[in-house]
Amino acid sequence: MNIIEKQSGAAFKIQKGQRLKVVDPKGEQVSDMVLFNAKDKREKISSGKTLDFEENILITKGDFLWSNRSNKMMEILEDTNGRNDFLLAPCSPETFKIMYGNNDYHPSCFENLYTNLKKFDIEPDDIPTAFNIFMNVQFQPDGKLSVDPPLSKAGDYVIFKAQMDLVVGLTACSAEDSNGGSFKPIHYEILE
Amino acid sequence: MNIIEKQSGAAFKIQKGQRLKVVDPKGEQVSDMVLFNAKDKREKISSGKTLDFEENILITKGDFLWSNRSNKMMEILEDTNGRNDFLLAPCSPETFKIMYGNNDYHPSCFENLYTNLKKFDIEPDDIPTAFNIFMNVQFQPDGKLSVDPPLSKAGDYVIFKAQMDLVVGLTACSAEDSNGGSFKPIHYEILE
Repeated sequence: MNIIEKQSGAAFKIQKGQRLKVVDPKGEQVSDMVLFNAKDKREKISSGKTLDFEENILITKGDFLWSNRSNKMMEILEDTNGRNDFLLAPCSPETFKIMYGNNDYHPSCFENLYTNLKKFDIEPDDIPTAFNIFMNVQFQPDGKLSVDPPLSKAGDYVIFKAQMDLVVGLTACSAEDSNGGSFKPIHYEILE
Repeated sequence: MNIIEKQSGAAFKIQKGQRLKVVDPKGEQVSDMVLFNAKDKREKISSGKTLDFEENILITKGDFLWSNRSNKMMEILEDTNGRNDFLLAPCSPETFKIMYGNNDYHPSCFENLYTNLKKFDIEPDDIPTAFNIFMNVQFQPDGKLSVDPPLSKAGDYVIFKAQMDLVVGLTACSAEDSNGGSFKPIHYEILE
């Protein structure tokens, strides 16, 4: 089991057919995940394509994560919590500045993704909207969005099965709103 | 007034401060719009950033369209219809193949965007999730999505004000589901 310390991130490769288990070890924590085709990094995870093909805002067990080229990247095999978000971009320095009036340095999923993905020649501008595991974004009939504390309990996990060779970026979220104000680690494991 | 013929597209530059009026001349037609910073095309319209900063799924008058670098690209000054979509990727050949079982050639917003944007050195992989003007995507509390006929009537329009120099890609949508099965033109005008 690999540990992503609070407010940090990781990036790694997994092969087609391998499974990725992402665990919330303490509960109420979020993990932003981005995916790239390991053989051509211009192909990457797409919120717009996934919501279109799955015909649902809420992506969970039985669904696929699709790429900008309309290929399947991951299948969700298990999801013990069942609530994830695929609407909102990873928190970035501007998130804290524009939305919370915080002009000081603040760690962010965006920074933690691009610094870890740099070793795969992926640049900040290449980071797409992430699949936000365990993130609890509620929407009202008028479209109003709110970022609520995650519903995940200690030990909740999601298992993904890779549909192609992938580069994965993964974080332990840095935003107060996403995890009820307490920063926590995320664990992950690659299973054969 | 410029005319985008049915199932086709256009791409053009507009300058900061200019306004873009997009008109549905016959009613019940959709126009997919993508935006790029004219001075650095790696900066582009972002659904994830826009939904995050505007805290709403439904983007309309008074809202801004934001970039992947957290900058404002457009302000929506007027929106006589009031329903647009920013969840779904532009229809592509794979949309018709995967969702509708159509293996024959079918025009698509994706093709009409990248062929028109090619003159600005923008490639297919650079096309992000578009802001889908007049598109009527309904969502249920369980997240289920449906693409319903647009609510727009003949003459409805949206006026955007550019917040930076932009390259704009714009279509008259090619998908049966987006426009109630009838393909129609889209009109647009650049106003000082």
